[in-house]
Amino acid sequence: MEAPYIVIIATGSEITAGRSLDTNSGWMANQLFELGWKVKKIIALPDDPDLILSELQILKKLSESRPVLALMTGGLGPTEDDYTLETVLKLSGKKSYSVEKAKIRLQRIYESRGKQYSDILPTVIRQTHVPEDCKTLDNSVGIAVGFMESIGVDSYLVCMPGVPSEMKEMFTRRLTPELKRIYPRENLVQKTKWLWNIGESLYQKDFVETHREELFEGVEWGVTANRGYIKCIFQSTDSNKLETVVAALESQYPKIISDDVFTFVHEELISKKLTIAVGESCTGGLLGKKLTDPPGSSSYFIGGFLTYSNDLKQSLLGVSKDTLDQFGAVSKETAIAMAKGISEKTKADYSISITGIAGPDGGSDEKPVGTVWIGIKSSDGSIESHSYLFPGNRESIRENASNTALFLIYQSLKQRKV
Amino acid sequence: MEAPYIVIIATGSEITAGRSLDTNSGWMANQLFELGWKVKKIIALPDDPDLILSELQILKKLSESRPVLALMTGGLGPTEDDYTLETVLKLSGKKSYSVEKAKIRLQRIYESRGKQYSDILPTVIRQTHVPEDCKTLDNSVGIAVGFMESIGVDSYLVCMPGVPSEMKEMFTRRLTPELKRIYPRENLVQKTKWLWNIGESLYQKDFVETHREELFEGVEWGVTANRGYIKCIFQSTDSNKLETVVAALESQYPKIISDDVFTFVHEELISKKLTIAVGESCTGGLLGKKLTDPPGSSSYFIGGFLTYSNDLKQSLLGVSKDTLDQFGAVSKETAIAMAKGISEKTKADYSISITGIAGPDGGSDEKPVGTVWIGIKSSDGSIESHSYLFPGNRESIRENASNTALFLIYQSLKQRKV
Repeated sequence: MEAPYIVIIATGSEITAGRSLDTNSGWMANQLFELGWKVKKIIALPDDPDLILSELQILKKLSESRPVLALMTGGLGPTEDDYTLETVLKLSGKKSYSVEKAKIRLQRIYESRGKQYSDILPTVIRQTHVPEDCKTLDNSVGIAVGFMESIGVDSYLVCMPGVPSEMKEMFTRRLTPELKRIYPRENLVQKTKWLWNIGESLYQKDFVETHREELFEGVEWGVTANRGYIKCIFQSTDSNKLETVVAALESQYPKIISDDVFTFVHEELISKKLTIAVGESCTGGLLGKKLTDPPGSSSYFIGGFLTYSNDLKQSLLGVSKDTLDQFGAVSKETAIAMAKGISEKTKADYSISITGIAGPDGGSDEKPVGTVWIGIKSSDGSIESHSYLFPGNRESIRENASNTALFLIYQSLKQRKV
Repeated sequence: MEAPYIVIIATGSEITAGRSLDTNSGWMANQLFELGWKVKKIIALPDDPDLILSELQILKKLSESRPVLALMTGGLGPTEDDYTLETVLKLSGKKSYSVEKAKIRLQRIYESRGKQYSDILPTVIRQTHVPEDCKTLDNSVGIAVGFMESIGVDSYLVCMPGVPSEMKEMFTRRLTPELKRIYPRENLVQKTKWLWNIGESLYQKDFVETHREELFEGVEWGVTANRGYIKCIFQSTDSNKLETVVAALESQYPKIISDDVFTFVHEELISKKLTIAVGESCTGGLLGKKLTDPPGSSSYFIGGFLTYSNDLKQSLLGVSKDTLDQFGAVSKETAIAMAKGISEKTKADYSISITGIAGPDGGSDEKPVGTVWIGIKSSDGSIESHSYLFPGNRESIRENASNTALFLIYQSLKQRKV
């Protein structure tokens, strides 16, 4: 069988009106990519049954010439702008029925809240309905049942809830096994490396163009720009070729290369039983937030200080008035004094300080907006500081600064290992 | 003229492979909505010239029967997977030329970095190219020039860079005036209110269904679920009708209704010259981050404490060992002691503490995952605390907790006004 033509559809007027960001489609695309399938198109449509139906008819038509897999999220909720079931019934000419198992589950949920079945609103019961003769996809998180409707030879329309936690569980546990059973997959291997503070064009010129003939035959490459780093992605059916490319990349950029720093820092701090504390000025808590995103971070993150004002830099972290007056709040000396203060107050193995000018105001000729100093006290007691001039707006500068702080922790942990 | 059929297209394999989230399309959709136009479809396509061309051909065809406006971002960069210009030339059968003004600008940028024109890579110069006989859209942030190509009667394909800061500036300053000149707009008025800790279904049943006949003739409504709150949106061509709906909503939900709390808290703290400080446990910095997102937050946010560990709750905020032993870290008593500690150490007018169980571990029968206590010391010296049981996963609980903390600040500031 030919690889399926995969289309992801998100429905919701809140998406097409720009009030809400569709994160489901990207998540699914990534999952599919890792499973060996490529998405041809991602579509978002308003809650308009005519527009949705006409899009589904195009896909049904397309399935006459090749296998089509359409994955649709949203529109299975209880409100009147939820049109998915109705539209699919129109497309197929079928009727719907209420899935017994889902009805029982709904009843139990209501009983556990001390309510009766008769309390359940009809609009809520509608969420247990699916078209006749389709494959149902159980929802173990929420109420709405998903389903997989045949729309042609080897072609399916999959409908799932728009609530991310429900969709993800359904996709992973119910849908993925079905898709693996039905569709052939490409046996691609992928490697990703991160390079810090380098532009995409320069990377392409200096690495990809330079090594094109010797390294890139049978290897696809891609690059995505992120805040502070670019992700260099390589794919091939030949894992040896990938190893060679990555080795060349490592030898060309030894000082700015890393793996996923978020994952590494998290795992390394846990496995080495090390602790970390922060002191943030311009990032206002963003570094602490990033360090505590993963479950289990309480085993290393003990806390820290948000010293946005100069008064708090003095009273909480013991930065001297002299240092602030002489060198300014955004300086090597302040970054180092902050790192020392964090370490003294928390006794953490690693202490990271960030002080900078996130803008849009507060810049000068000498210290323009984007100037950031990061101090790091490592587990061996040494204190380093690094200065940066990050590009972009306030949000970009704050993201750059906190990501780069994680890269510095990464490097310090790596050196520790050796 | 009929309203244009608006399609937004984002190109980029990083989007269709799920490695990067398309935030441009939603931003544009929102801008267009506020200008009085509705988007019919948002599409993301991989960097595949054939797929892009075939999509553009469909839109060109559609423009034979009605005005079409296609807004495309991405693919104008310097790397070899940037296909936009090439594809548009194929669609139109035109040639391209380098825009003189953009070339001079590029030269100045290079000179300001101490480089010569001859240093500029040809791939970078390519970014100054546009199709012949099109309307160019200057880029005052980056290098790539945007353009607006006629694809039929009253129909245009607009190509803009994928870098958000470049696209936004170009959209607002260059494109919007053109669109206003060309297309008629719907004169819709919109009102948005937020309701806290209530589900969409219940809102629909209790408010929309109940008042449908008396309130909703000529008024469209929509609702989006967010972390901690739902946004209730109403639209009409008649602003009096909107006022009536909003008044009814306020009278039905006086205790849980708010405007955009992020904007209100920011503006109110600035205009009343009040200061705020935080003490965060389970949110790890997220509340501080949210408070410092907007420029100008340094006039009210003085800083705070990330007391993730119990040791730091004691040593930094003076929460007593007795309190922690007797009531636990997640308790009314600890939340209040934290708020007191923040206030004493920072002298801020408002002190907010958050302590909770973000999970997935650490829950118990008595205090399940999602249990969060928030303490707030207001400018009049009073201290309150509130407990919540937030739904969802770790990320959801942290978002819920920090948003709800902002709602509590909102309420306290509102009461202060009276």
